[in-house]
Amino acid sequence: MSKEFLFRIVVAWLCVWLGMVPGRAQQESASQEADAFFIRRIYDEALTHCHAWDWLWHLSEDIGGRLAGSPQAAAAVAWTKQVMDTLGFDTVWLQPCMAPRWVRGHRDEVRVAHSALGAFDLDALSLGNAVGTGPDGVLAEVVEVFSLDEVDSLGEAVRDKIVFYNRPMNPRHLNTFHAYGEAVDQRVWGASRAARYGALGVVVRSMTTRLDDVPHTGSLRYEPGAPQIPALAISTRDAELLHDLLRKGPVTLYLHSEARILPPVRTYNVIGEIRGSKFPDEIILVGGHLDSWDVGGGAHDDGAGCVHAMAVIELLRKLNYRPGRTIRCVLFMNEENGLAGARAYWAASDSLGEFHMAAIESDRGGFTPRGFTADALPEVFHTKFRAATEWLPLLEPYGLTLEKGGSGADIRGLRKQGGLLFGLKPDPQRYFDYHHTAIDHIDAVNRRELELGAAAMTTLVYLLDKYGLPEGERPRDGARE
Amino acid sequence: MSKEFLFRIVVAWLCVWLGMVPGRAQQESASQEADAFFIRRIYDEALTHCHAWDWLWHLSEDIGGRLAGSPQAAAAVAWTKQVMDTLGFDTVWLQPCMAPRWVRGHRDEVRVAHSALGAFDLDALSLGNAVGTGPDGVLAEVVEVFSLDEVDSLGEAVRDKIVFYNRPMNPRHLNTFHAYGEAVDQRVWGASRAARYGALGVVVRSMTTRLDDVPHTGSLRYEPGAPQIPALAISTRDAELLHDLLRKGPVTLYLHSEARILPPVRTYNVIGEIRGSKFPDEIILVGGHLDSWDVGGGAHDDGAGCVHAMAVIELLRKLNYRPGRTIRCVLFMNEENGLAGARAYWAASDSLGEFHMAAIESDRGGFTPRGFTADALPEVFHTKFRAATEWLPLLEPYGLTLEKGGSGADIRGLRKQGGLLFGLKPDPQRYFDYHHTAIDHIDAVNRRELELGAAAMTTLVYLLDKYGLPEGERPRDGARE
Repeated sequence: MSKEFLFRIVVAWLCVWLGMVPGRAQQESASQEADAFFIRRIYDEALTHCHAWDWLWHLSEDIGGRLAGSPQAAAAVAWTKQVMDTLGFDTVWLQPCMAPRWVRGHRDEVRVAHSALGAFDLDALSLGNAVGTGPDGVLAEVVEVFSLDEVDSLGEAVRDKIVFYNRPMNPRHLNTFHAYGEAVDQRVWGASRAARYGALGVVVRSMTTRLDDVPHTGSLRYEPGAPQIPALAISTRDAELLHDLLRKGPVTLYLHSEARILPPVRTYNVIGEIRGSKFPDEIILVGGHLDSWDVGGGAHDDGAGCVHAMAVIELLRKLNYRPGRTIRCVLFMNEENGLAGARAYWAASDSLGEFHMAAIESDRGGFTPRGFTADALPEVFHTKFRAATEWLPLLEPYGLTLEKGGSGADIRGLRKQGGLLFGLKPDPQRYFDYHHTAIDHIDAVNRRELELGAAAMTTLVYLLDKYGLPEGERPRDGARE
Repeated sequence: MSKEFLFRIVVAWLCVWLGMVPGRAQQESASQEADAFFIRRIYDEALTHCHAWDWLWHLSEDIGGRLAGSPQAAAAVAWTKQVMDTLGFDTVWLQPCMAPRWVRGHRDEVRVAHSALGAFDLDALSLGNAVGTGPDGVLAEVVEVFSLDEVDSLGEAVRDKIVFYNRPMNPRHLNTFHAYGEAVDQRVWGASRAARYGALGVVVRSMTTRLDDVPHTGSLRYEPGAPQIPALAISTRDAELLHDLLRKGPVTLYLHSEARILPPVRTYNVIGEIRGSKFPDEIILVGGHLDSWDVGGGAHDDGAGCVHAMAVIELLRKLNYRPGRTIRCVLFMNEENGLAGARAYWAASDSLGEFHMAAIESDRGGFTPRGFTADALPEVFHTKFRAATEWLPLLEPYGLTLEKGGSGADIRGLRKQGGLLFGLKPDPQRYFDYHHTAIDHIDAVNRRELELGAAAMTTLVYLLDKYGLPEGERPRDGARE
């Protein structure tokens, strides 16, 4: 330290003596020190005076599960707008969109009717967007499969049957999202694939590596034109049980679900904006999605992302940081079962000719942040990503890395504007313990981990705002279509 | 891939043609590939067929809190020895030691006697090794302080008072262990410091950054010759309450504790050893401590460390790995309130002239591993640590780093043998939510995170065993004293 200090005095003296201004390298080093100091202040503030946790408590516990179109989603819109009105944005507004409205009804039921064991219920949840069974339910023999292809090869053998998709998430992946990506086709497309061959309903093993009694819902999609059949997720422990029973002999299941699809309803994205003082046309978006599944509190998915995004603004403001670029905080509606909010946002942004220089979504839970994944159009990715990696010396002391990877479902439609899109990457080990379940509540979130996520996002926004990103080969308007 | 394959064929052909054996660089590259492959197998095995979780369940839930000398500690010794007898060690044995025996008694009580609010209890736990209050308890006015020094400056003003230590852990440290290290002097030395000036008892703010109702116990030390006065921890929320009450006026507290110290009892370290096939005199130790506090289940502290160490042996065996060096798994007794087991181990090891080439302790919880801290005698540290950092390309894909830092309380006495000592470093954000509390149970542990810790330890053991460490300036026997 004192050596460095002496060195500086000598350098300063030489500068005066030679009438020189400090060279570029020296300016850069001073700037990096200022950045390191500011980032340390972001973290200090996040770990001591950040409202992310209190907000998340209210959102997940007082408001609760908030599927698009539900009264809880409306309450979440109204309340987050109120909070955002206090955060010092230049403008806060609601952006309308029409979202599908799916309701679960009173009771999801998957009952085993077994010759030796009698009848008993499995832990089950209807999949989102699924139709119900009608008041009489569905009673049929079960056929176990491990892939969509297997249904194709069985073909007519599944007619009038209930198809049971039981391929587990692969626990060997260190990144649990890879395991999810490999297994989730069963939940999304399983019903339609089975319906092609005349199946009456499907049950799907829950999307988690854990062995427990917690069913995980999540959306399915019906292929256009295919018959729509009911679909329910069962817990992994019950999936194992059903598998064991099927090894002994035929099993009959009774499904009952009152799920139904109501007419679409008007709902909103909640948006706040601080207009940039130097480059107002270069937008940096931070966001999460405001809707969640109806069961549980949507604490990790994606209350955490919403309060992360709001905390970015709170933290910058508390540190008296005035951005040169436009910072926009967007809480998207209807990510879980339709993306209506995201699509409305993309369309409006494109029609206004906006340019999102960067966008960061937090939608992988409120765990200790490990860095960001980044994505962009191939022709601009390399230039922009390399520029961002120059900040790694500032990020690494906080355990943050940058890597190529997906951004977020709500922002990926902004990719064609030519900016760099980021997804916050928290530690992924626990996410699928809670994802889309009745246990995704505030007690599953650690306050410090949540706050560190907010600090990580704020740090990246600060660097993006201060230094911008090189143009790369930014597509002209004509190229967007 | 196919290019690399072609390249290899060409190289192989050239080797044959020229009658050459592969050069060193090529051998090294092949060896790194073999290592990468083996490490991947360690992780696969850990995430699919590892007993760490089941063992931890039994240890923390069926056996439960197991302070040295308690019936639970005896059960833990007997049961872990039974399990280790099945793991394929060459030898499993119990190493006796005499441990202090502290018992809490029936009820810890910190009661506020307030003129306006009446009497009410705070959430409290007597500190370990503390004396009790006697049947009448202690009733006295409270003096709040924030450091040991403040007690010195108050001096006689604390006579016949209860001293309340209320300096919080600093939440700004990303590594919560640093915050703990800065604050824990209040718990360890606070009672004796206050007793010097005639205080009757102390209460200490719990060691956690969380604001909650959970008191954290932990050991204190009485200075030789100083009067021994009772000491209890109160929850952080109650510490805040007490602080607020004291701002309004004087507060009287009533303390009651039946804590007492019984005569020392014989207890044991549990040790298993696989004798090395090539360098049996170079010992690689993996360990944790088998005892825990009496409240809670000791799941993170340090059941996780014990099952990590046992899982290292299980995983190596399942992968048919025969170590060249001697691998020793040691479950130490009495880390929490005396280190009797560790001292017995060090003394026996020194008297046999053993050399621990390396030792790894896991005693920071069962969270996602982020790497290892390493420590050694200054004269050998640099050489050995640099050798270990050559493995970083194999560790980094699993999110593991190596840094200089403490190893573990149970192994630090082996440092003088001249080996390299490691501490497993899991993500530290949640540890002090559970440390020394009644909520340190299996439900606070994530199975995958625990298994990743076992895989990380196994990986390091594999590399240490395969490559050894350079001698450095290994101290001769004479230099050990």
